[in-house]
Amino acid sequence: MKSDRKHKGEVAGSVHRVGIGDEIYGLIEKLYPICRSITGDGVRETLEIMREHIPLDIREVPSGTQVFDWVVPKEWNIRDAYVKNSRGKRIIDFQGHNLHVVSYSAPINRVVPLAELRDHLSSLPEHPAWIPYRTSYYNQTWGFCVSQKQLEQLTEKEYEVCIDSTLEEGSLTYAEYFLPGEMQDEVLIFTHLCHPSLCNDNLSGISVVAHLAKHLAALKRRYSYRFVFAPGTIGSITWLSENRTQLDQIKHGLVVALVGDDGPFTYKRSRRGDAEIDRAATHVLRHCGEEAKLLDFIPFGYDERQFCSPGINLPVGRLTRTPNGCYPEYHTSADDLAFVRPERLSESFIQCLKIFRVLEQNRYYENTNPMCEPQLGRRGLYRTTGGTDIPGRELALLWVLNMSDGEHSLLDVAELAGMDFDVICSAAGELLRAGLLSPVE
Amino acid sequence: MKSDRKHKGEVAGSVHRVGIGDEIYGLIEKLYPICRSITGDGVRETLEIMREHIPLDIREVPSGTQVFDWVVPKEWNIRDAYVKNSRGKRIIDFQGHNLHVVSYSAPINRVVPLAELRDHLSSLPEHPAWIPYRTSYYNQTWGFCVSQKQLEQLTEKEYEVCIDSTLEEGSLTYAEYFLPGEMQDEVLIFTHLCHPSLCNDNLSGISVVAHLAKHLAALKRRYSYRFVFAPGTIGSITWLSENRTQLDQIKHGLVVALVGDDGPFTYKRSRRGDAEIDRAATHVLRHCGEEAKLLDFIPFGYDERQFCSPGINLPVGRLTRTPNGCYPEYHTSADDLAFVRPERLSESFIQCLKIFRVLEQNRYYENTNPMCEPQLGRRGLYRTTGGTDIPGRELALLWVLNMSDGEHSLLDVAELAGMDFDVICSAAGELLRAGLLSPVE
Amino acid sequence: MKSDRKHKGEVAGSVHRVGIGDEIYGLIEKLYPICRSITGDGVRETLEIMREHIPLDIREVPSGTQVFDWVVPKEWNIRDAYVKNSRGKRIIDFQGHNLHVVSYSAPINRVVPLAELRDHLSSLPEHPAWIPYRTSYYNQTWGFCVSQKQLEQLTEKEYEVCIDSTLEEGSLTYAEYFLPGEMQDEVLIFTHLCHPSLCNDNLSGISVVAHLAKHLAALKRRYSYRFVFAPGTIGSITWLSENRTQLDQIKHGLVVALVGDDGPFTYKRSRRGDAEIDRAATHVLRHCGEEAKLLDFIPFGYDERQFCSPGINLPVGRLTRTPNGCYPEYHTSADDLAFVRPERLSESFIQCLKIFRVLEQNRYYENTNPMCEPQLGRRGLYRTTGGTDIPGRELALLWVLNMSDGEHSLLDVAELAGMDFDVICSAAGELLRAGLLSPVE
Repeated sequence: MKSDRKHKGEVAGSVHRVGIGDEIYGLIEKLYPICRSITGDGVRETLEIMREHIPLDIREVPSGTQVFDWVVPKEWNIRDAYVKNSRGKRIIDFQGHNLHVVSYSAPINRVVPLAELRDHLSSLPEHPAWIPYRTSYYNQTWGFCVSQKQLEQLTEKEYEVCIDSTLEEGSLTYAEYFLPGEMQDEVLIFTHLCHPSLCNDNLSGISVVAHLAKHLAALKRRYSYRFVFAPGTIGSITWLSENRTQLDQIKHGLVVALVGDDGPFTYKRSRRGDAEIDRAATHVLRHCGEEAKLLDFIPFGYDERQFCSPGINLPVGRLTRTPNGCYPEYHTSADDLAFVRPERLSESFIQCLKIFRVLEQNRYYENTNPMCEPQLGRRGLYRTTGGTDIPGRELALLWVLNMSDGEHSLLDVAELAGMDFDVICSAAGELLRAGLLSPVE
Repeated sequence: MKSDRKHKGEVAGSVHRVGIGDEIYGLIEKLYPICRSITGDGVRETLEIMREHIPLDIREVPSGTQVFDWVVPKEWNIRDAYVKNSRGKRIIDFQGHNLHVVSYSAPINRVVPLAELRDHLSSLPEHPAWIPYRTSYYNQTWGFCVSQKQLEQLTEKEYEVCIDSTLEEGSLTYAEYFLPGEMQDEVLIFTHLCHPSLCNDNLSGISVVAHLAKHLAALKRRYSYRFVFAPGTIGSITWLSENRTQLDQIKHGLVVALVGDDGPFTYKRSRRGDAEIDRAATHVLRHCGEEAKLLDFIPFGYDERQFCSPGINLPVGRLTRTPNGCYPEYHTSADDLAFVRPERLSESFIQCLKIFRVLEQNRYYENTNPMCEPQLGRRGLYRTTGGTDIPGRELALLWVLNMSDGEHSLLDVAELAGMDFDVICSAAGELLRAGLLSPVE
Repeated sequence: MKSDRKHKGEVAGSVHRVGIGDEIYGLIEKLYPICRSITGDGVRETLEIMREHIPLDIREVPSGTQVFDWVVPKEWNIRDAYVKNSRGKRIIDFQGHNLHVVSYSAPINRVVPLAELRDHLSSLPEHPAWIPYRTSYYNQTWGFCVSQKQLEQLTEKEYEVCIDSTLEEGSLTYAEYFLPGEMQDEVLIFTHLCHPSLCNDNLSGISVVAHLAKHLAALKRRYSYRFVFAPGTIGSITWLSENRTQLDQIKHGLVVALVGDDGPFTYKRSRRGDAEIDRAATHVLRHCGEEAKLLDFIPFGYDERQFCSPGINLPVGRLTRTPNGCYPEYHTSADDLAFVRPERLSESFIQCLKIFRVLEQNRYYENTNPMCEPQLGRRGLYRTTGGTDIPGRELALLWVLNMSDGEHSLLDVAELAGMDFDVICSAAGELLRAGLLSPVE
């Protein structure tokens, strides 16, 4: 099925880009070493590097700011951290892997008995070589994460423990990138950027979204697009609080995260369950050529929790590959540069663009000749020899004509026909040009 | 389950008729040799033979008449056609099989080089002995259809090609038969009659519908019935155009076609999807004793396309056995007198009558004793010994009583009860006579 | 999942009671020998014994009273019955088993030829050792029920037949027990008590319901509870007729019967199909730890037929284990003390209480912090270390918060979350105490 339209410069145009997976992976490599958290210089450093790709608007929200039921916490920064043995050797070393320190650990610098140290250590017995990822944002404490092997080698009576961190008045940092479209109606794309050296969760989301933004910037857009990069939970809450008066402009939204692994695509519906974004994403994934998973909304996961809280209730879904908590490497040091792959990142990029394309093109039309079928053959739209099978292109024309009564969108037609949206959209284009269809406002 | 009602003379009565299959088949045999098309004397000859069964009202609509987006085409007639080899032998001969000529072929009479001839030939490589059926109604050209064997035997440099046809101002011919009922509300039965020597598609439909009309003429009818025999597509469009002011009298409609093969019954729902005809046909086929197929509406197939176009949107479904395009013999010379069978035609006839019977009998009633169950035993309607299993007849009484609240039709009750409509209808009859039910107007 | 609430004295509290199965079984043993019918002293004797457990309010409705379409029949009592052979030996003896006499048999005392006697005998050829249960309440006759073995031993020419029964003006006896709650809104629990020596049908229902009443009497109740013990069909019709002006107080109802056998739980939905009792029972049975069966309403079964007649249409469902007619021992002497078991009775008792508990606790709430999630950690409701899996208790908190928009009841939340109602209910309790939830009136 070949469209005769030329939309190369539009969101509806071709989405295949050679090498995009490598570009996305390249940014992940650059950002991987940085120790991010929900606040601090790691976030700022990350955003500066991303600015090489898109002109991000960076915002700072001061510690202590009330954001709905929450308060923006103190800013956390860390320079160094280690546990030294009696010979002065760093046996746990933040310089080796920033996952070793529990995020938001308070400063400490003293000799600690093994028993006390153990109370501040996390490990993964079932994966003895991996370091877990732990945080303690709102309960001031300190802690280290270690491999099970490291844990088992702790045999001395006491250890020198140092975390050279600061917890001070400062700010929470997030970034926005806004692309105006023909309409003020917005598509919101959100991804969390608070995780330290973890690739799938969520450098994959950060880099795919950054490249989506870069790509969309060059295209003609019906919708305006707003990309938000912010820390998880407190970041989306802060963003919603700061933008609470403008939320009604958001017509569709997508949280993008965990899009670099080998797992199948997983779309989690918005709380509304049947929002247009839900139907668009469902359609695209059903036609993506591999088995995709569709989940109903649950109030656990990433920042869709906040967008879909009962008082906000925006039409925001979530696209991941394997969801949070559903792969062993999740929130461990094994979520590294080998765990995400350029091909997967490229596929994720493409599916997102396809979803946006459905949103862009999903319109209501009316058949201008609704009494019986119009004579397509006379207009050169139909084969002239009868008695043979109908080609898919002609069947798509008939579907669009039959269902274009002002009550069915093109996505409705595609779903009823069991055909790909692009085929239906292309048929609508032919019929529009033939004057057999008119848009419904 | 035995009904004590005597409706022998009603649509609701017994539908089994010994020998009906042979009668239906007999008419097919008579009509098989005629070369029909969307216009022309073949159609007229066909209708004259059918008039031996039912007093058809034959209509002629002049070429050039505007019918919605279409124009009634010139009338096509053909006397002879052939391809002769250098020895003057007819190697393709319309006299041998009228499928050999592409329907609506323009006249030609000249020697043609093989290469040019080949461009005007259709064959079926996968079925080398069969002749395909092809038409070119609206693109003036000429062509022959041949078996693959015939095609392969064409080795001479040129051939004498003759099609002795005419394409002239004339008319499109269709026929109606109207049976008035107690109500002006109509049931429309449509079948296409434009196909030449093809038995299942659609002499089976023509003959079954003609015999349905003959049978219904002798019965008491609540609904009026209108039978239309017309060419496919242009015929239904013409009929709809000519009758556009009276379409609101059509309460239910059925396109009947392809009803003589060995395949299972296939009902295709109207565009509305849940019209009463859809529910009646679905119910009847679910209880027909073999597996039937139920299809949602698609805007491809037979004349239901026009009845179900968005501006018409009548409650018209379609009954076939194996649908168009779903059996290898479809639109080939193998759809011949051996392909259709009297038993199958008889079964199709009976299922149609059963569908009409549901429409006739499907009423709303109110239980006149809605507070608790009425005492059926006192009225002789219920077994007097307790403790045993309930017979189906009594269960049907309880279903009708329980659901007759003015909101459920008998068909609703049958569906809820999972019982055959006839059993429920019979129970309603018993309750009516006992004064326990009253009809809702 | 552990609730921190202390509701020991409420319907919502713990329902496990050691030994309850034995208590329920004990009452069945006591009532088993009594010959009950739809009227008569057997019913009165039964109710007197039950009064040892609950202070039943016993009602007498005189013979001849019009109850909707029915009339309360004459009262039937029986002292003795037998068939004697020529040697004066009782070969069929009511004293041996009261099922031997067809319930409501008219008196007879004469010598009867074998052929005539045979016309008045019922047996079960497929179960030669079992005596069937038969009744003839509204068609005056006489009859005996015998084992197939007994039937086959009848070889003499004539027999002395005696049924020492009376059919006289008297009354229909039923009993009520009313437990007032905080609200006037009532939960109706109905069970039939007209069956003679049959244990599952329905001494199991009688005894389980009596013990439910006894148990609920000691608990704090939001709803009022009305327990009705009455004969099948004529009893529920009489009760509905006598109470017709107060039926709108019944918000939920349950017919309980056949709850002592080894079969799975079977809930039959009310005629409404989606009443709260239907949803509560469905939820409880889906979480009961074994496969339960859920049936749509059909107008056949027990007294739900009357409660769900179209003019009454109360939200009354039915809980059984194996339903009527679906086990071979049904309505035979094999439905004896060995057929019902204390464990099964105990489980049935518990499931009923769980259903009542859902009704008691199923409220609508509003999240008082609906904009984004409230910070649960600050309130001690959420783990302080991030990065790990979420425990079920916390997930339940998130579900209740997310769905508490005044539109979803706790049962809705439980169904959406796929979690047990108790877990959701417990989470709601925590949130209420934290001020994060407020009840919707």
